[in-house]
Amino acid sequence: MEKINIALVGYGNVGRGVEEALKLNVDTELVAVLTRRPEQVRKELKDVQVFHIDEKTEDIQIDVAILCGGSKEDIPVQGPKFAERFNTVDSFDTHAEIPSYFQKMDSIAKERGHVHVISAGWDPGIFSLMRVLGDAFLPQSEQYTFWGEGVSQGHSDAARKVEGVLDARAYTIPIEQAVQRVRIGETPEFAKRELHKRMVYVVAEEGADTESVRKDIATMPHYYDEYDTEVLFISKEAMLEEHSKLPHGGFVLTSGVTGEGNKQILEYRCQLESNPEFTANVLVACARAAFRLSKEGRKGAFTMLDIAPGYLSPHSAETLRKSFM
Amino acid sequence: MEKINIALVGYGNVGRGVEEALKLNVDTELVAVLTRRPEQVRKELKDVQVFHIDEKTEDIQIDVAILCGGSKEDIPVQGPKFAERFNTVDSFDTHAEIPSYFQKMDSIAKERGHVHVISAGWDPGIFSLMRVLGDAFLPQSEQYTFWGEGVSQGHSDAARKVEGVLDARAYTIPIEQAVQRVRIGETPEFAKRELHKRMVYVVAEEGADTESVRKDIATMPHYYDEYDTEVLFISKEAMLEEHSKLPHGGFVLTSGVTGEGNKQILEYRCQLESNPEFTANVLVACARAAFRLSKEGRKGAFTMLDIAPGYLSPHSAETLRKSFM
Repeated sequence: MEKINIALVGYGNVGRGVEEALKLNVDTELVAVLTRRPEQVRKELKDVQVFHIDEKTEDIQIDVAILCGGSKEDIPVQGPKFAERFNTVDSFDTHAEIPSYFQKMDSIAKERGHVHVISAGWDPGIFSLMRVLGDAFLPQSEQYTFWGEGVSQGHSDAARKVEGVLDARAYTIPIEQAVQRVRIGETPEFAKRELHKRMVYVVAEEGADTESVRKDIATMPHYYDEYDTEVLFISKEAMLEEHSKLPHGGFVLTSGVTGEGNKQILEYRCQLESNPEFTANVLVACARAAFRLSKEGRKGAFTMLDIAPGYLSPHSAETLRKSFM
Repeated sequence: MEKINIALVGYGNVGRGVEEALKLNVDTELVAVLTRRPEQVRKELKDVQVFHIDEKTEDIQIDVAILCGGSKEDIPVQGPKFAERFNTVDSFDTHAEIPSYFQKMDSIAKERGHVHVISAGWDPGIFSLMRVLGDAFLPQSEQYTFWGEGVSQGHSDAARKVEGVLDARAYTIPIEQAVQRVRIGETPEFAKRELHKRMVYVVAEEGADTESVRKDIATMPHYYDEYDTEVLFISKEAMLEEHSKLPHGGFVLTSGVTGEGNKQILEYRCQLESNPEFTANVLVACARAAFRLSKEGRKGAFTMLDIAPGYLSPHSAETLRKSFM
């Protein structure tokens, strides 16, 4: 079988997840890792060529580079940079900036002849797909996206910056009553605090004023002030033992009416014990699609909305028609 | 706005559903109905041109014909026939025959230059999509499809043929325990009777031997013998009042493991108060895709696995990136 040669750019949580995912995808092979700290990564990775992120990799055939960095600082720089050299896949998730990032990647793609799948993952990504499908199948419907129960890394980081906080882990929790109302076909307008609540586990610094820590977190603008937030103080050991995993998940619900008042409800749900490992798997499926689109001579930026689902699958179109229809 | 001109072939439950759906899709317009009984349909439909199914329609511009007949007798004949004249969409749902039907439609398409979206609907169709996505995102996972609670028209028809039965309505009901086991991440192998049970409401003929009716239904090969089946006798009036709707639905569950034993569960669920009306809406979205693919010069047979999701949406790619990602 012709293997798809994959390079990773970045070797953190998602990069390690992609490395694992590639082992389960027998049509792919990890051929290179590009990182800012090649010395360290070489200690962990024996069988793969490790390069500094600015090093040339011309000796090896790289079909698709998967950008495993963060959306704040890494991808906005690395996307356009690696787009010059490779087909790429990334998980750029700053929703408001997706249109302009798409334009930038698309224009580089048209010039250099590559395929770039941007904003892949579960949200944006699969959930985007579900919102588009729900809206297409049930016009004039209402849509609701719930996240959780799961760890929000952005909110954890924000809580960690509060004075007196040694470590923090923030969970997003969907409000069960809201989910149930939508599931039975109601279509209310919810305020933010009616959709989700937040629970923050905090290891306080010795001697910290826990009451002001609690207040500083719960009233933090943008991150917490629009939600009901519970802050719980725990020990360092409890943090390590009970909160070291990165579970997440969520629901996309579309609620519409057809004909004489017939309620039609569509729901997509994912329940993930490891958010970065699942995201990694989605990135690998998108890398396969990028490889195939590129082989067909396509060039440009793509979101998951622009990719026929069959391209994501390791199976042939014939097998899919025979065994999955 | 340029409207997509739609013709219906057949005017039963699904045809009426498509007529309703087209009203909610402002980029489409119903321009013709082709039917075996034009006289009757003309009485119901005043503002649309109604033709006999074999009549010529050359005077009107038809962008896509939606075949609204059944998979047993209508579509296998009408698909190839109308493929000669139009882009088409159909809901051919005889799973085992999809590969050969695809080949037939594809070869006509290549000759005549049309686009044919086959086997659209929710299963096959959306559920096929979810099985492919689940398998692509979680390699080496287990998949489960549950149907119901809803009316199975095939099983209702089969029960109606039993001696002593005046009318029958068969419901497929997923076994809640099985659903729950999969939802918590177990991956058992189920026998058919562990996944679904059947409940059949029967209006018996006067003087019928209800015990033998019960037995004849419950032991019917293929349809009922592999399931636990409950037969309930009701009055004609109760049948009309309580069982005239055609609700349905189901779940596609994908259960996989990544990394060090992290369970990842994906679930798609639809809960439909009207199965034919929802199917109709999916057909309309696919007609939009067929129209756009055809405008781009594509030709061939397509399943929903071959269509980039954005093509199904009434919104532009820019709007989708801005508002749905």
